Amino acid sequence: MDISPSPSREQTLPKFSLPERVCQLSIEIFSKLREASFDGVGVSRETYGPSETAAFELLEAYALEEGLEVEWDAARNLIIRLPGENPKLASVATGSHLDSVPEGGNYDGAAGVIAGLTVLIASKDEGARQRSMEVIALRGEESAWFGGPCYFGSRALFGQLTENDFNSPHRDGTRTLEDCMRSEGADIEALKNGTKLLDASRMAYWLELHIEQGPILISRDKPVGIVTGIRGNHRHRRVVCYGEAAHSGAVPRWLRHDAVLAMADLMVRIDEHWRVLLEWGEDLVVTTGIVETNAKEHAVSRVPGEVSFALEYRSQDLKTLKSFEALVQSECEQVSNKRGVRFDLGVPSLTQPATMSPEMISLLQSVCESQSVSHEVMASGAGHDSSVFANVGIPSGMVFVRNDKGSHNPDEAMEYSDFFLATKVLGGAMLAIANDKAEDC
Amino acid sequence: MDISPSPSREQTLPKFSLPERVCQLSIEIFSKLREASFDGVGVSRETYGPSETAAFELLEAYALEEGLEVEWDAARNLIIRLPGENPKLASVATGSHLDSVPEGGNYDGAAGVIAGLTVLIASKDEGARQRSMEVIALRGEESAWFGGPCYFGSRALFGQLTENDFNSPHRDGTRTLEDCMRSEGADIEALKNGTKLLDASRMAYWLELHIEQGPILISRDKPVGIVTGIRGNHRHRRVVCYGEAAHSGAVPRWLRHDAVLAMADLMVRIDEHWRVLLEWGEDLVVTTGIVETNAKEHAVSRVPGEVSFALEYRSQDLKTLKSFEALVQSECEQVSNKRGVRFDLGVPSLTQPATMSPEMISLLQSVCESQSVSHEVMASGAGHDSSVFANVGIPSGMVFVRNDKGSHNPDEAMEYSDFFLATKVLGGAMLAIANDKAEDC
Repeated sequence: MDISPSPSREQTLPKFSLPERVCQLSIEIFSKLREASFDGVGVSRETYGPSETAAFELLEAYALEEGLEVEWDAARNLIIRLPGENPKLASVATGSHLDSVPEGGNYDGAAGVIAGLTVLIASKDEGARQRSMEVIALRGEESAWFGGPCYFGSRALFGQLTENDFNSPHRDGTRTLEDCMRSEGADIEALKNGTKLLDASRMAYWLELHIEQGPILISRDKPVGIVTGIRGNHRHRRVVCYGEAAHSGAVPRWLRHDAVLAMADLMVRIDEHWRVLLEWGEDLVVTTGIVETNAKEHAVSRVPGEVSFALEYRSQDLKTLKSFEALVQSECEQVSNKRGVRFDLGVPSLTQPATMSPEMISLLQSVCESQSVSHEVMASGAGHDSSVFANVGIPSGMVFVRNDKGSHNPDEAMEYSDFFLATKVLGGAMLAIANDKAEDC
Repeated sequence: MDISPSPSREQTLPKFSLPERVCQLSIEIFSKLREASFDGVGVSRETYGPSETAAFELLEAYALEEGLEVEWDAARNLIIRLPGENPKLASVATGSHLDSVPEGGNYDGAAGVIAGLTVLIASKDEGARQRSMEVIALRGEESAWFGGPCYFGSRALFGQLTENDFNSPHRDGTRTLEDCMRSEGADIEALKNGTKLLDASRMAYWLELHIEQGPILISRDKPVGIVTGIRGNHRHRRVVCYGEAAHSGAVPRWLRHDAVLAMADLMVRIDEHWRVLLEWGEDLVVTTGIVETNAKEHAVSRVPGEVSFALEYRSQDLKTLKSFEALVQSECEQVSNKRGVRFDLGVPSLTQPATMSPEMISLLQSVCESQSVSHEVMASGAGHDSSVFANVGIPSGMVFVRNDKGSHNPDEAMEYSDFFLATKVLGGAMLAIANDKAEDC
């Protein structure tokens, strides 16, 4: 992927600044949002629940107050618009989600929506643009509320919701997603028809600002990240290694088929491949998050006959995921032959990676350079709505904001100074696109 | 250890044979014993319970019927005696335990007592011997009934029972060992005085026949094993590796402290040391029987921050156990430094190994050779009463009988033809000692 700055745009980058009033307004919105959704520990903005809807209404009120156009779609996503002068040109859009995990933090998702609104408010006073600028506040990005499925709002835009989604049970066990969507005013019939709520050809580019959910920007001491792609994942939820249980004292090494030592052998081989592949330039993370011997039969003085473990790898590159899967299978065979054990890998699940548009990466880099914002070009390990936009073919980009202590917890620690730097990068890029008179996008 | 046959005894080995009547009687006793203690699945002869006492009384009845002397001691062990002609000489004794695990097999323990009785009956008809020959049927060898402690009968012989033993709760939770011992007629006051029930100087040698509880004799296709020592064990019941939990997608390799990969790294290092030490001639088995990530926080998509595992190693050589412990600690440090994790090894427990007498090993080998019995010289990985006798300084030996499908289950599969070969080896050795007029034992 060529991510060198695009010379054509570099010469035409417009000035983009955030007046003090706009910055204060941003902080006020964050503050009101936290108040409205504080749960005693962190914030809870429940996917298709009243607390999420309250957040949407709060944002709508600020948008209207600032003279922006607003519109709700059939999935109860909120579109905030600053119209452009040339209605023939497709819009440049940004946005993110407003829901949170239970007892989560105030920035995960909301930062992207507030950044978008901030950009529109700041742009409104700077005169006319060719293209419309839009913020989409998206519903239900988190997987915590309905047992796994997620990206409901963004997938609804492109007619991607399935029966399985509608039937997903709420974590409280009493309702389905469909029940909750209906309660919050969504038009279920329209969504079940597979109607696309958004015409992709009317959106020229999609950009999303989000807090980083890992420690890379903190470690690199950089306020802003530019995302190259969103890692897909290949998951074996439960691999089982079957050996042979035996007396730990009476059975010598040459007669053992120790499931745990076989698993350790496999893990060390996988770990070593991972290390080498990183040096080779591949994008890859590998995790074995759960390990358990069989509690029905394990004992301190028993050679373990069975152990299960989770195996997940993520990469921005589908080819890397597939090649690594083949490597894992090959190592399972090697270890099986060496140690007389058997691995059952189960049926893996695959989530496709999403590639950010080289053009957007290049533009964001140029804006960073023109504004002297120190930035890291990096992968996103966590999933984001942007993968949905990218995978329907809308050229997409993401801006990360430095954030300490991860996400999905009340301790998220984004600093507003970093947020404003990232918002200026987002705004600079959006304005550059919106000012572009070219009709060939 | 020099285990070459002793030339002095080799020339004087007496003939020892098992007449058909005696063989039939043996099989009858096994059969009656199984009937008396069948529990619907396997046999249950409960440590200091009525089913164990019934087994003792069955053996007593057969001994009396054959004109042997019997005696009960204060721990309700049963001593069966064929007196020798020279009362100044210490006896040669054999025996094993009569209890079983719940739903266990008929041979674990009982085979050694029945073999001893068989030897005494067969010897009785062959004329006088210098030394007395004794069979001790021992109480409570299994750890399954009182939550860990074991070898109650053999330890009582040498005044080794402690308050902790007496207070051990029965697995049914309603009684202590003391309650159960009292119910079966033991003299608790005598035992609590620390009275030695046996004068070690009156026992010249101890021999025990037992089924093998591992697969070595089956694998080597040999009916009989001669035991060199009983492995002691060094146990870390719960080692914890502490790393750092993190998002499995958003945290790159260079910022991870993965507890599971660190554990796997340690295990593979330990496994490799084990392999090399075996080639170096050390006696060692290593087992990690239990492995568990922390269920309160583990997840497929979370870098594991904590994992616990059991670590046990066994050897006949105390020095090997201690050196290996030092090696494990050193590898923990290496892995900790390499991966930024921490291992908490907890407080280990040590059970001393027991060495069988080189003289007994040599004698048993000579008898095997004189009787053309194919045999394997091997370690015992499981614990046995013989370790108690050996560790008070009585020269001890053990004969293993080939046995398929392990022990502590109803599927134990000792063949009587193997049992009789092993019993002839036991009898040949006992008779050689009993006929020996030397008074310097």
